[in-house]
Amino acid sequence: MNKGLLIVVSGASGTGKGTVCKKLLDDMPKISYSVSATTREPRPGEKDGREYYFLSRERFEERISKNEFLEYAEVYGNYYGTPLNEIEMRLNCGEDILLEIDTQGALNVKKRCPESVLIFLLPPSLEELRKRIEGRGTETPESLERRFNAAKEEISIGKKYDYVVVNDTVEFAVEKIKSILTAEKCRTDRNSSCLFSD
Amino acid sequence: MNKGLLIVVSGASGTGKGTVCKKLLDDMPKISYSVSATTREPRPGEKDGREYYFLSRERFEERISKNEFLEYAEVYGNYYGTPLNEIEMRLNCGEDILLEIDTQGALNVKKRCPESVLIFLLPPSLEELRKRIEGRGTETPESLERRFNAAKEEISIGKKYDYVVVNDTVEFAVEKIKSILTAEKCRTDRNSSCLFSD
Repeated sequence: MNKGLLIVVSGASGTGKGTVCKKLLDDMPKISYSVSATTREPRPGEKDGREYYFLSRERFEERISKNEFLEYAEVYGNYYGTPLNEIEMRLNCGEDILLEIDTQGALNVKKRCPESVLIFLLPPSLEELRKRIEGRGTETPESLERRFNAAKEEISIGKKYDYVVVNDTVEFAVEKIKSILTAEKCRTDRNSSCLFSD
Repeated sequence: MNKGLLIVVSGASGTGKGTVCKKLLDDMPKISYSVSATTREPRPGEKDGREYYFLSRERFEERISKNEFLEYAEVYGNYYGTPLNEIEMRLNCGEDILLEIDTQGALNVKKRCPESVLIFLLPPSLEELRKRIEGRGTETPESLERRFNAAKEEISIGKKYDYVVVNDTVEFAVEKIKSILTAEKCRTDRNSSCLFSD
């Protein structure tokens, strides 16, 4: 049996990453979402092992030192990480796994797991990106400008990904990601066993 | 504008290559089929520039010496080749082009044009391959065995292709090829211009 695909989706702020990943998972129930570990406090309604694995800082750092994360990052004083053991086991069983993580985490995954498939979501244009960030209505002009510039910078990191998908409409973007997954499963290096080499 | 895709499809005898390519072109009228050049005589009904460009041996060898073929081969005393100039012009205009050629030609195309997309068609199984070759009903047991062994050997060359597609049904195989083309158009190295590097 072929190994599952480790699919990593990132996108700058305002590219609609969350909506696209949700529709992808709805459409393809066989893809499973990886549950991350974190040291932040559970919010009301969150359940350990469903939204996150909630770990103490001490336990998290112990797991870092044992190299038990595929990638991890510290954001505003809390750790977030992708547990390695569970992912490896599920990939070996042929399960496809989706990670929705930031660019730094994604590039670390690629280093550790070169056969992972990195997909970067793009807004249709810079004007559209600005509109989407503005559309949230929660920003001051300064913070809007800061977020916009940060998003532009983040987009240039997309060059290091395997694929870029323009999120013009959620439906088109999800169809393109599905095609990428179908194509990746046809790649010769993932199918050496079916070439009847006997 | 992005360059078009140079799509190369091969498959061992009995894999249904012709049927798959025909349906792909029917479904995607924007993909154009490359007209090959040959030194063999036109058959009744064949038109120069439609089925083939019919060239004299002298003219063909002159074009070989000028490096004007993307690939060429001599088969049973006749030359067959893919003219380079027309293909380059059309790719630069963003047109996708399909070449249905043998494995030797395909690997030569890849050498000359590394961004080409090589797709190898596989029969669902070796038993199925044997059945399909037998099904033609035109073979003696010896020639059948010879064709079967040649096909098995050809299949092992598929490892050098970018993708392998199992032709279980023509519809599934064509859908997979369409996904491959969609995915290839999303590859980052084909989209450097859309990453807003300004």
